[in-house]
Amino acid sequence: MPELLPNEQASTRSPAQEATALDVARRLTGIAASPGLGIGPAFVLRPPDLTFQAQTEGADAAEQQARFAGALEKSRAELSEVRERTAEKLGEEHAEIFDAHLLMLDDPELLEQVAAGLQQGQSAETALSQVSDSFIAVFETMDDEYMRERAADLRDVRNRVLAHLLGRPLTSLGDLREPAVLVAHDLTPSDTAALDRQLVRGIVTAVGGRTSHSAIMARGLGLPAVVGAGEAALTIESGTPLIVDGELGRVLVEPGESALTEAQSRAQVYAARRERLLALVGTEGRTRDGERVELAANIGSPGDLPIALEYGAEGVGLYRTEFLYMAGDRLPTEEEQFAAYRQVLEGMGEKPVIIRTLDIGGDKAASYLNLPAEDNPFLGFRAIRLCLARPDIFRVQLRALLRASAHGNLKIMFPMVATLEEFRQARALLEEERAKLQAEGVPVAEHIPLGMMIEVPAAAVLAETFAREAEFFSVGSNDLIGYAMAADRMNEQVSGLYQPLNPSVLKMIALTCEGARKHGRWVGVCGEMAGDRLAMPLLVGMGVTELSMSAPALLSRREQLLNLDLSQAREVAAEALTLGTAAEVEALVHRAYGEAVAAPATASQ
Amino acid sequence: MPELLPNEQASTRSPAQEATALDVARRLTGIAASPGLGIGPAFVLRPPDLTFQAQTEGADAAEQQARFAGALEKSRAELSEVRERTAEKLGEEHAEIFDAHLLMLDDPELLEQVAAGLQQGQSAETALSQVSDSFIAVFETMDDEYMRERAADLRDVRNRVLAHLLGRPLTSLGDLREPAVLVAHDLTPSDTAALDRQLVRGIVTAVGGRTSHSAIMARGLGLPAVVGAGEAALTIESGTPLIVDGELGRVLVEPGESALTEAQSRAQVYAARRERLLALVGTEGRTRDGERVELAANIGSPGDLPIALEYGAEGVGLYRTEFLYMAGDRLPTEEEQFAAYRQVLEGMGEKPVIIRTLDIGGDKAASYLNLPAEDNPFLGFRAIRLCLARPDIFRVQLRALLRASAHGNLKIMFPMVATLEEFRQARALLEEERAKLQAEGVPVAEHIPLGMMIEVPAAAVLAETFAREAEFFSVGSNDLIGYAMAADRMNEQVSGLYQPLNPSVLKMIALTCEGARKHGRWVGVCGEMAGDRLAMPLLVGMGVTELSMSAPALLSRREQLLNLDLSQAREVAAEALTLGTAAEVEALVHRAYGEAVAAPATASQ
Repeated sequence: MPELLPNEQASTRSPAQEATALDVARRLTGIAASPGLGIGPAFVLRPPDLTFQAQTEGADAAEQQARFAGALEKSRAELSEVRERTAEKLGEEHAEIFDAHLLMLDDPELLEQVAAGLQQGQSAETALSQVSDSFIAVFETMDDEYMRERAADLRDVRNRVLAHLLGRPLTSLGDLREPAVLVAHDLTPSDTAALDRQLVRGIVTAVGGRTSHSAIMARGLGLPAVVGAGEAALTIESGTPLIVDGELGRVLVEPGESALTEAQSRAQVYAARRERLLALVGTEGRTRDGERVELAANIGSPGDLPIALEYGAEGVGLYRTEFLYMAGDRLPTEEEQFAAYRQVLEGMGEKPVIIRTLDIGGDKAASYLNLPAEDNPFLGFRAIRLCLARPDIFRVQLRALLRASAHGNLKIMFPMVATLEEFRQARALLEEERAKLQAEGVPVAEHIPLGMMIEVPAAAVLAETFAREAEFFSVGSNDLIGYAMAADRMNEQVSGLYQPLNPSVLKMIALTCEGARKHGRWVGVCGEMAGDRLAMPLLVGMGVTELSMSAPALLSRREQLLNLDLSQAREVAAEALTLGTAAEVEALVHRAYGEAVAAPATASQ
Repeated sequence: MPELLPNEQASTRSPAQEATALDVARRLTGIAASPGLGIGPAFVLRPPDLTFQAQTEGADAAEQQARFAGALEKSRAELSEVRERTAEKLGEEHAEIFDAHLLMLDDPELLEQVAAGLQQGQSAETALSQVSDSFIAVFETMDDEYMRERAADLRDVRNRVLAHLLGRPLTSLGDLREPAVLVAHDLTPSDTAALDRQLVRGIVTAVGGRTSHSAIMARGLGLPAVVGAGEAALTIESGTPLIVDGELGRVLVEPGESALTEAQSRAQVYAARRERLLALVGTEGRTRDGERVELAANIGSPGDLPIALEYGAEGVGLYRTEFLYMAGDRLPTEEEQFAAYRQVLEGMGEKPVIIRTLDIGGDKAASYLNLPAEDNPFLGFRAIRLCLARPDIFRVQLRALLRASAHGNLKIMFPMVATLEEFRQARALLEEERAKLQAEGVPVAEHIPLGMMIEVPAAAVLAETFAREAEFFSVGSNDLIGYAMAADRMNEQVSGLYQPLNPSVLKMIALTCEGARKHGRWVGVCGEMAGDRLAMPLLVGMGVTELSMSAPALLSRREQLLNLDLSQAREVAAEALTLGTAAEVEALVHRAYGEAVAAPATASQ
């Protein structure tokens, strides 16, 4: 039984007990999105007031032209800086959006029309707004999602220039110079780009749920976060002292002495625990009785590698390549892909890197592909289905992967495979590209293990058949659970049916492990279940030998694994498979492993 | 091995061979939606030209008022007749929509505004159009689906009155007096109401697929149909000789002598076969070696009973109660439901009737419930999920079912059950209502077997657990396949993954049968697989003992069953479960049962 962990201990107190112990001016409650305690002054990202008095005649044209040029210059400098910072932190592909913004600042038609407005005596604010608004209106009526997104870009650019004209600069994460708790309506990927992990102590957003971008990002960075705290969060003034409790989903505004002391002491416990867990980094993933279980990280771009290595990832269990496709406004080239894949492979050295081929469509769309809208996108044209229908796109990725294979320990995995034919077709395309590259004399690794995701129920129940041809499986638990329970977890009305511990879900994973075993294949899990403290002993007990998760989760899971007894885990898993409900399974895990695993799911990392 | 069936034989000829054998003026191709050959003159349902010259002043008010009153009168008479015919054929609940239309004809505000227009010298056409169009525009902007549907109703009513004013009456199915092939853009449920099965020889629609209302209805009525034949179908003139080939998905326009002769001889073969199959009606469903397999019918309303009995249904395997909820513009009352359930139970006498509780939501919506739009409705708030969240609605249905149970052999089945908790909650509500009714002295059957649909993959793999509490299972293969393969079959881009014969689908059904067997429960199938000639031997071989299908399919399946050897079917099914792809399973079935099952799926009935 793993020893009692601090954040698990903390959660055994009821919120009511907490409340009496604390003196605070105000309290906000939201969704506990990433565990930990953050203490610091608020830094509120609030859209500035960009209203102004329109002036359509009588303004001095030369003066206004000078003001406009100045605002453009400041905007250009700002955007270039954001662009650089993004490229550094997240890679070139994420930075391209700002190139588009920079180009808009130099758009001749826009500049010409603004100049004409200024000649007529309009103020710079008026001319800029009128011209950009008419462009925006045209973009927005276009029956093309790509152009509609350009409307959003132009609106951003207009606001930036307008803010400089009005002398009310946009609050930007780049302005953060002191440690602070970040408060925002929501965080966009661009905000993330500007976020300085050394200074941000915690995150509070007005909207969002546990799977919103802000929440996922906070967990990825290991920052405490409360999301969905309501619009009231935005009434906090910058500088106000805050305590973000990412475990109880609570924000304390202007805490008094005792609350602060209490929080600081809890934060110290967290810090001590973190030290202890960090000391285990470098220890190989094994159960107490010696069974090897590889602890790997899920990554979305080469920029995620440093943190994965810092937390001791023994491999990359899932490299989601779709961000390469979604960041820009066009398909990534073979060279761009090759560079990204090679960077990850070289960064991991001899450690295994599983790259998943493009999983786009469904909730993850690239507007430039102009995919038709679907009634049920999760049951639609996505991932391997799209790739097999668009070999022109797929072959480029396969070539980049094959070329990268010479630079590390690559395994390739196909997503959303539902039929054996799909696996075979994808493999055949890969072999064709391999033959071409070899004919061209390009070095390619001799053997690249080919695996597939188990996320379609059909594949889980037929795993034994698939295992004849697929060299490994990785259970994508998020989608597998959704399909198995026929419940979209993003739909609040049925999200209660999204039950990782439901015996039916465990049964599908057990069938996957049994099928794999018969053909000597291994099974990993790369969905959220892999990082979940309650699910982990069951997964290992069923025969899963690789767990891939967000990097910060590796710390706790490593400790838990080192304390886990495989033979007991097997017994517990076998018993779980005989039970009727998720609640019964949860109770069983609690009985078997004690209160240590009894913490709410929010504290699972 | 069942003997070669005529429509199966016909299909072994290639379309090219057919073409050379036929002389026709024109040929349309579409989707083979319901098998059989229909020969007769076209009866084209074409919307009449309702354009007119607007006259906004100078018309004689009294004269126009008289014209308007006359058109109203004719419309009223027409609507009353349609209403009566619908009530008779399909039941009161379907007729209510016409009550709404009749009320619109008497709407005081509408009549007043039209009268005011006439006083200003407008013609009746002009006044009616202006007034109703402004009402329609208001309805359409409302953020309420119910009101937007009222806009569609008012448009229907306006067109009907306008048609009478212009002396260009709407072509109505009610006008059909001679045998004919019906040609339409698409058929609505109201059209169905007016359709005389004795006169309609076949159906051709411009739009739709195999699962459109027109296609389902045609199969239900046993009428040959080609759907999705394109708008060119509407250029056919009424009276033009047609041959509808519901097996090849082809319409021959103005066929010559030889084509007609050929078609007539094929139609005779069909007719002879039909005679032979009808002669088997009354024979109990059994395999050749004596295993009992109940052959039941799927119905949607009491109006479907006569045809089910005519084709020898041994029970109702699925009574879809949602039509009761979708036909009107409000929830059906307990009395209305009781009347419908009782009618079906009494109509079936001692034969079993499985009534499925409300399966609404997803693709089947009732606008008055104002359900929120969902990103993935098939993975959303529907069926038992909705019923458990809305016990106010569910309890009314349960009471009606309990009361009806005293009038026949009722079994109740819950749809979309994914967890044991859901089944238990639904059962608890039923027991509560039973106790209340018994306390009130209302007679209720002593034992009503309670079962559940197997359509969520989680339920299939956990069938053994569910079988401890559910008294029977009915596999809803349509949805089960969709979830198992994670493919929405209505989405053309992935409909190829909708594979009833995929070994993974068979595996889920096999798990269901094994689980049921351990607890002495029986398993039925009520999706399209039950009526499919290729799937049927596999289902029986896996242990399915009830097959419920559209009534016309019963004829062929009964004959096929009587020729089926259970021990062979078991071997074939066991082998199918070891295969890798749907294509391999199909080849196996062909090998085992010969060319007789080799016909295209369109001829499966």
